[in-house]
Amino acid sequence: MSGAEQSGHLPLAEGAEFDLVRVLLFEWGTRARGIGDDAAVLDVPAGERLVASTDASVEGVHFRRDWLSPEEIGGRAAAAALSDLAAMAATPLGMLLALGLPGAWREDVREIARGVGAMAERCGCPIVGGNLSRATELSLTVTVLGGTRRPLRRSGARPGDTLYVTGRLGGPGAALRALQSGSAPSRADMLRFAAPVPRLREARWLAERGAHAAVDISDGLLADAAHVARASAVTLEIDLAGVPRVDQVSPQQAATSGEEYELLVAMPAAVDVPAFVSRFGCDLTAIGRVKPFDGESVRVDGRPAPRQGHDHFG
Amino acid sequence: MSGAEQSGHLPLAEGAEFDLVRVLLFEWGTRARGIGDDAAVLDVPAGERLVASTDASVEGVHFRRDWLSPEEIGGRAAAAALSDLAAMAATPLGMLLALGLPGAWREDVREIARGVGAMAERCGCPIVGGNLSRATELSLTVTVLGGTRRPLRRSGARPGDTLYVTGRLGGPGAALRALQSGSAPSRADMLRFAAPVPRLREARWLAERGAHAAVDISDGLLADAAHVARASAVTLEIDLAGVPRVDQVSPQQAATSGEEYELLVAMPAAVDVPAFVSRFGCDLTAIGRVKPFDGESVRVDGRPAPRQGHDHFG
Repeated sequence: MSGAEQSGHLPLAEGAEFDLVRVLLFEWGTRARGIGDDAAVLDVPAGERLVASTDASVEGVHFRRDWLSPEEIGGRAAAAALSDLAAMAATPLGMLLALGLPGAWREDVREIARGVGAMAERCGCPIVGGNLSRATELSLTVTVLGGTRRPLRRSGARPGDTLYVTGRLGGPGAALRALQSGSAPSRADMLRFAAPVPRLREARWLAERGAHAAVDISDGLLADAAHVARASAVTLEIDLAGVPRVDQVSPQQAATSGEEYELLVAMPAAVDVPAFVSRFGCDLTAIGRVKPFDGESVRVDGRPAPRQGHDHFG
Repeated sequence: MSGAEQSGHLPLAEGAEFDLVRVLLFEWGTRARGIGDDAAVLDVPAGERLVASTDASVEGVHFRRDWLSPEEIGGRAAAAALSDLAAMAATPLGMLLALGLPGAWREDVREIARGVGAMAERCGCPIVGGNLSRATELSLTVTVLGGTRRPLRRSGARPGDTLYVTGRLGGPGAALRALQSGSAPSRADMLRFAAPVPRLREARWLAERGAHAAVDISDGLLADAAHVARASAVTLEIDLAGVPRVDQVSPQQAATSGEEYELLVAMPAAVDVPAFVSRFGCDLTAIGRVKPFDGESVRVDGRPAPRQGHDHFG
């Protein structure tokens, strides 16, 4: 327990449930902090606002056991939650993991924890608390807390803004199509599907350069563009051919691929794209513009975009 | 959507999933705030620290459908999470609800939301975000955020402190025993089981009067006393006959009844119990004392307490 003590955890009681918690804490080492009280205690830096989001990854809904390793499931769940902090241009302060754990997954706890821990470390986000419960399906509900002086909201897009998207789209959708048809995705597509990267530093860089609005592309570019358009009461015009995409994916597929965790950002002025690319090793592409609301939320090449997006309850 | 607009929510997209979110927001009215962005934005009052906890209530683990109404399930899940803020003597700032919703529960969403909303209102805690996912079993993962100048921790108990417990114990355990044996619990026991009340104001009152440590009694008095003892590296001595209990429950049953959501508090000096009782309409009872660690975490009437507590994975 020396690692645990270094991290300021409280001593844990005996029993199988706490043994599982000990497995998590051993795997996380110093990435977990102050575990074991009724609640975590954190400090939001002076002058910053608190940003909070909770995001669930559920077996059979968000992932399938035969598609992803336990480590990937853990990393992806953490990344999906942290991506919401990126969309707000917030710096991570802490993460809480509520794990619903069926008996059939108990042996995989260490590997799940490894994936969560690696993503937490990559994003500089300590793991400060959580909850462990029996369940009939595996679920990871990740709550992330962050701080920022000026949150970047969906509602800030203004006519005249240019729309930029980070990265290249279409990989997760292509991987999903391959998996669903029983064929093997390309290595690159599978990496995009299994190991997405929250664009935290990229978002803060863009926010510092005056970004008006942002959203992370979890439902697909067109669906999330519609969220920004509605929230900002504007029309978003997207040039489909300009949407950056991975190999062997059509512009339409790229524009509707979900779980990208790239960012769509409305910028009031042109961005120094080469500086962004050289700093982050990540594409940044102008794909359209913000117009006064003309009766349509999103236009693609001038035509109204069809309704898009995943709907778990449709 | 006028209620939603009053509360500063963003406009929501179309579709069955967002229709369910609209049901939640309609039910919550102004108790929900600023829903619809990638994350919630909150402010921790100047000079206060952020306290955060996440707590899951899972069908078949924490409740059964035939035991509780959907409204009670919602209220109880929110109360269990808010009770962790009480244990830290924190004031609620916001709540996020991640709902795992099976098809068989979809018609009950409004009633579940009503229970969550009533508890949020009772505790002065706005609902600031959440997540909605399909699932095969109903689960409510509630994350609560609070603020406090001086968090009350499990680790602060000192030799010489007096141990106090709020309320009367044993009701939830008695209700559970009745339900499990197929008989009807008493109305009072069932109320304690189905509608627990987080002791938020009570905790702050005790913290202002110098409390050294607190824990909420979710695992049972003796099990949670052991948590305090281990965290504080002391021995807790409990006088079993002094444990306040509901009617027709033995002291032993009261001391091991889980999901009480009362508080066990270590106080350095005697408390004005009549002032507490008249202010909160809630009992406060001295049940023991804190001693230097003598090799046992908890002693009951001088004898080592047997290992206690719920263990979902035992």
